Amino acid sequence: MDIVLNRPIITLTTDFGLQDSYAGQLKGALLTGCPDATIIDITHAIPAWDVITAAITIRTSYAFFPTGSIHLIVVDPGVGGQRSILVAAGAGHFFIAPDNGILSFLVADRKIEVIHRFENDCFLNASASPTFHGRDIMAPVAAALAKGGALRDFGDAVALDAITLTIVPSAVSEVDCLHSQVQRIDHFGNIRTNIRVGLGHLEPDSFDCLEIGGRRIASWARTYQEVPPGTLLVLIDSGGYLEIAANQASAAELLGCFPGDRVIVHLLRK
Amino acid sequence: MDIVLNRPIITLTTDFGLQDSYAGQLKGALLTGCPDATIIDITHAIPAWDVITAAITIRTSYAFFPTGSIHLIVVDPGVGGQRSILVAAGAGHFFIAPDNGILSFLVADRKIEVIHRFENDCFLNASASPTFHGRDIMAPVAAALAKGGALRDFGDAVALDAITLTIVPSAVSEVDCLHSQVQRIDHFGNIRTNIRVGLGHLEPDSFDCLEIGGRRIASWARTYQEVPPGTLLVLIDSGGYLEIAANQASAAELLGCFPGDRVIVHLLRK
Amino acid sequence: MDIVLNRPIITLTTDFGLQDSYAGQLKGALLTGCPDATIIDITHAIPAWDVITAAITIRTSYAFFPTGSIHLIVVDPGVGGQRSILVAAGAGHFFIAPDNGILSFLVADRKIEVIHRFENDCFLNASASPTFHGRDIMAPVAAALAKGGALRDFGDAVALDAITLTIVPSAVSEVDCLHSQVQRIDHFGNIRTNIRVGLGHLEPDSFDCLEIGGRRIASWARTYQEVPPGTLLVLIDSGGYLEIAANQASAAELLGCFPGDRVIVHLLRK
Repeated sequence: MDIVLNRPIITLTTDFGLQDSYAGQLKGALLTGCPDATIIDITHAIPAWDVITAAITIRTSYAFFPTGSIHLIVVDPGVGGQRSILVAAGAGHFFIAPDNGILSFLVADRKIEVIHRFENDCFLNASASPTFHGRDIMAPVAAALAKGGALRDFGDAVALDAITLTIVPSAVSEVDCLHSQVQRIDHFGNIRTNIRVGLGHLEPDSFDCLEIGGRRIASWARTYQEVPPGTLLVLIDSGGYLEIAANQASAAELLGCFPGDRVIVHLLRK
Repeated sequence: MDIVLNRPIITLTTDFGLQDSYAGQLKGALLTGCPDATIIDITHAIPAWDVITAAITIRTSYAFFPTGSIHLIVVDPGVGGQRSILVAAGAGHFFIAPDNGILSFLVADRKIEVIHRFENDCFLNASASPTFHGRDIMAPVAAALAKGGALRDFGDAVALDAITLTIVPSAVSEVDCLHSQVQRIDHFGNIRTNIRVGLGHLEPDSFDCLEIGGRRIASWARTYQEVPPGTLLVLIDSGGYLEIAANQASAAELLGCFPGDRVIVHLLRK
Repeated sequence: MDIVLNRPIITLTTDFGLQDSYAGQLKGALLTGCPDATIIDITHAIPAWDVITAAITIRTSYAFFPTGSIHLIVVDPGVGGQRSILVAAGAGHFFIAPDNGILSFLVADRKIEVIHRFENDCFLNASASPTFHGRDIMAPVAAALAKGGALRDFGDAVALDAITLTIVPSAVSEVDCLHSQVQRIDHFGNIRTNIRVGLGHLEPDSFDCLEIGGRRIASWARTYQEVPPGTLLVLIDSGGYLEIAANQASAAELLGCFPGDRVIVHLLRK
């Protein structure tokens, strides 16, 4: 695969936050290597060191970008240690990340086609900070890729199952219910579960009701405004996951609910 | 009007926050439609579902961008419901927003010249999420406009008074005072009132003093540093509104004051 | 010096935060003057009016950007008052900032070669807000520089020691220890001290241990993961400063520590 945009697009998904200059410095390193790049933040608010949230974020976000985009994901608790750096391609996109599980869901979804393990000393210089490989190694790699570099320039190909794959608790099916949990609460207080609708976990027409935080919610809807303001409902979120929300209110606040909390989905008898 | 920049500029004003990947996904959708666009965040920190703050933000911000800019404003509590989407032009700029009041002040200020109501099925596809029209409908419309699309391509023109117009509490004039209120508190703790200076509400030379939170403030100034650090003052903010501030301190904290609080401005007898 | 990039790069370092539209408006002003500029946020989260943090941020960040970049630093407690605006160049970069100490460390590090004091009335117009010179004066200056303007166009050169220079508490050396303090706590809870390693303050091989918050830390490491998760360590951060951190945990939280707190570094007897 060697799709290259006229002006390369590089996206960033990190746990750097925005209070420091880390994201800015990384962008400087990208532009130093590839001054024409268009750099887009997917988010810098992955919780610190939270590889699973990073893996879900890139899974649900990359496809909205143009074919040929380069996605740099830097959540890197093992920075400077033995973990290697991966340069991968698939579904028309490129992905650069530490080998710590970030690419797990892209592999599980069969989106990744090839993975190379970075090992090219050309990108290592004496002044690279051992605590900021995002800026000092991954950004130069991304810039070189943006300028038309081939994956083999960065290191040898490895098997898709030779990388670190993360296992997340997925919903457990019983005869008439699904045991699942809260995966993430968004800015609006919408509650994302770990159930992906229509992918074998749950079909919309088999939903009866759902229990969370001692409450039972039976209102399945397509959009928030199908229920009165402040009312809880269940719907498919814009990333394909089952979501508990409230019309113009925070479902998480109404339910006093946090990531990891139990959600039981009751199914209709067929 | 068909002003088109060499590299189109698209600005974003949303209530998405930055903790999730929503703003990133929307940018991906914009670049998918128009890879050359320069995308600029005006802010993603409009309070959730707060149409009035969005309306004030775009009113006070658009004019600082180059002529031909496209302003996409996504604060959309009615997403997926009956509210339509508007594509408007005026004062050399383009505006795309849900029909929920966001364009009210631009219409009131006579900046908007034409409004088209979006109804072109070409932009609707089966995979559009019913909860994220910003990404799945408004971004493709903005990208098509950026590539030189004409307003009539998106739908028919409607009268300026046929859209949803929001009414905000404005200052009430009495013989020797103005009853107003706190509209917004900014990052520095500066307090913006709902009085626009020099537009009929209040002339600078008629200001005597002001009451807020049980305090009386008589120091009218041009700049913060005309009073000692920590001291309260009254001035015209950079958006043209009457502001209560403090030199290098948070006026809102000093006064214990919140949006909606009463402000009484006493006028000089002429 | 007249290095000009094909597409000029302008970086922003401000205390505007992201909750308002101030950063967006400033970018609009930059694009109005120079529509081709690539604008990159270093950070907008400098604490309000904190000139010293701004000075450290630009010192540790500018060099990661391409030669020819223009760095606009707007932390401006004296806005609208007597303080002037500086346009400086050195080390292949340009810097625009109020004359309030922001350029101090760049001067101390001998990176700045020339400084001009802005005094050109062409950039002053009647509609400039006296409270937002970042948008209404510094951005037009940056845009003019980006389009190839020479420093002398903006005002006369001044001596490097004629500008406002900030003095920060630096580490105090005794026979066998260094008295220093906490300078900044980052998003991860890493604690940056005011000691720059290897620049005369402290050589890595002279470190024995360090005291902070009643704790003694002797683990000097190159990377976080050399110690078990949750364990404190001392290392050189990616900006060259001595840092107290913890592997995948917040050192600041573990130590209950804040900016300004005392840090004593004990040295090995030679």
